[in-house]
Amino acid sequence: MNKRDKTIRLGHGSGGRMTHDLIRDIFLSHFDNSILLQQGDSAIWNLSASPDASGHSPTSGTKLAFSTDSYVVDPIFFPGGNIGSLAVSGTVNDLAVSGARPLFLSAAFIIEEGFPLDQLDEIARAMAAASTEADVPIVAGDTKVVHKGKCDKVFITTSGVGLLDEALSHIPTGSRVTEGDVILVNGYAGDHGIAILGERESLKFQSPILSDAACLNGLIAEITAQYEVHFMRDATRGGVATVLSELAGLTKHAITIEEQAIPVREEVRGICEIFGYDPLYMANEGKVVLVVPGDQADKVLEGMKTHPLGRDASIIGKVGGEYPGKVVLHTEIGGKRFLDMLAGEMLPRIC
Amino acid sequence: MNKRDKTIRLGHGSGGRMTHDLIRDIFLSHFDNSILLQQGDSAIWNLSASPDASGHSPTSGTKLAFSTDSYVVDPIFFPGGNIGSLAVSGTVNDLAVSGARPLFLSAAFIIEEGFPLDQLDEIARAMAAASTEADVPIVAGDTKVVHKGKCDKVFITTSGVGLLDEALSHIPTGSRVTEGDVILVNGYAGDHGIAILGERESLKFQSPILSDAACLNGLIAEITAQYEVHFMRDATRGGVATVLSELAGLTKHAITIEEQAIPVREEVRGICEIFGYDPLYMANEGKVVLVVPGDQADKVLEGMKTHPLGRDASIIGKVGGEYPGKVVLHTEIGGKRFLDMLAGEMLPRIC
Repeated sequence: MNKRDKTIRLGHGSGGRMTHDLIRDIFLSHFDNSILLQQGDSAIWNLSASPDASGHSPTSGTKLAFSTDSYVVDPIFFPGGNIGSLAVSGTVNDLAVSGARPLFLSAAFIIEEGFPLDQLDEIARAMAAASTEADVPIVAGDTKVVHKGKCDKVFITTSGVGLLDEALSHIPTGSRVTEGDVILVNGYAGDHGIAILGERESLKFQSPILSDAACLNGLIAEITAQYEVHFMRDATRGGVATVLSELAGLTKHAITIEEQAIPVREEVRGICEIFGYDPLYMANEGKVVLVVPGDQADKVLEGMKTHPLGRDASIIGKVGGEYPGKVVLHTEIGGKRFLDMLAGEMLPRIC
Repeated sequence: MNKRDKTIRLGHGSGGRMTHDLIRDIFLSHFDNSILLQQGDSAIWNLSASPDASGHSPTSGTKLAFSTDSYVVDPIFFPGGNIGSLAVSGTVNDLAVSGARPLFLSAAFIIEEGFPLDQLDEIARAMAAASTEADVPIVAGDTKVVHKGKCDKVFITTSGVGLLDEALSHIPTGSRVTEGDVILVNGYAGDHGIAILGERESLKFQSPILSDAACLNGLIAEITAQYEVHFMRDATRGGVATVLSELAGLTKHAITIEEQAIPVREEVRGICEIFGYDPLYMANEGKVVLVVPGDQADKVLEGMKTHPLGRDASIIGKVGGEYPGKVVLHTEIGGKRFLDMLAGEMLPRIC
């Protein structure tokens, strides 16, 4: 990338193709280290290789997962949550899908001068509730204030540390994904995106679409304790389609998806049609895509359905097909199309 | 605090009294946990109490330090550094002064649409250089973009994890601080604040005042390996005075400081006089206040002076005096005054 005279565009924050390019061209080119290069949802750090000042090494096998995300969602309050609950669940989920048990979080606030304290209080209350629900305490924080007009109400950055379950260390890499594996998602796609869009555009729904923002660590712990899981990733910015595209890119396997098997609410589908969006690219904040061995898929599906956050789980496709490294979608009307990463920016500031 | 109709003011981000009150009234009231309540530079997490999914506990005694800070400094480029180098050194220092060896960092960027890519590249390069110098890699990151006018150029949040040296676990608590201990600082106070102020006000200096932003983990590791240290804290927002005030509050000891012993550059003193500021409240980004046993102070001072970042170190005062829990400054003209925490906001967006 020629950086001269180029500027940041909204698509650079989409989580899709432009974000990937920006990370590669600017950040990875400078922050050259093997852990960052893995580009998983969390960085994995082998603590055993880090003796303390007195030369004492922690137990061999202790691996930490580490993740960070800034939240700039607009509006900050939306049906089903607010920027605070989102900031907690998002980072908890990044750790959980990496095969780690989330241990603790930090929260750093950048606040606009003049922001109402009662709104900050409501945000903090939502963070505390999400943190309690997930059983992951917020142990460190920071507060910065900028002049009116120099930020938009409040931005929150959460970071989190988890303890990697050694038996799950293959999960972020996708190294065990193999032809014949089956792909599942734990429920309806696109709810978070439509909840934000609806709030922004003051859309009237018969029954309001709530953001699906939720901490998935409980569901994931249950599933991984009982079943073999080959890969997991939470479908956030860029939606289910972007995760599937990343999976195909990472494993070089062909991926085949049945569009009609992906749970999408009628209202979500309707709004997407009106605005010309594809629900598969719509953001989620409580959805995980799992890849499991083909012969265990039905049992995993059953297991997921017993958890409140997996009630609407579905088998959506399989590993295998004609085009290695590509995702082919079998559409509801009998056609086929490739699913690629989100190219530009669909809904800025969705999270 | 009555939150109704109250709004965030710039002073809430000062790092002084108003920040402390905001944290107490909003964040601590909701995020109620014993680790956050310690309010050190880093949170300390005992990993031994955290078995992994299979019930396996890491070695007893493994304690992690965890810290986060958002950087909103304005201007983003200033003499002696930029927002990127600051974001790395600030979090490295927070871990180091807690008695931990910094292991790894994350960096989360909130960027304004239209921000020049070559400036982002320069910032990333400075972060990489600081990270390499400190030997603390940046292993995780995030990028968000907001519309033009919705943030000011770029904000960076860094978080970091360190391994606590068990022999130094008393340092953040101040529990070993005792009457007769001696207080040192590793060099000139107020350089960072004046570098920012000078750039903002386009002041012309004969020789430019450079920010003192630097990673102190090397200096601190050398000192703590050789000498007994009872307390350390980096003097950032709120300056040396705020750290001393926190020390007095934490230990309930009287603190006596000799103003003339605190190294302050002539130019810094001059600019402070013109603007009506006190250099002791001016921000630093490479200064640590240490408390050591009285009989070792001279040796610690000597040791510090052999390190490039401790060349201008000085003994500035002692633990003891008439007013328990208070800091008394013996002024250069022979007077006495109390040093309290920074009350409002002196220079917004100093870091």
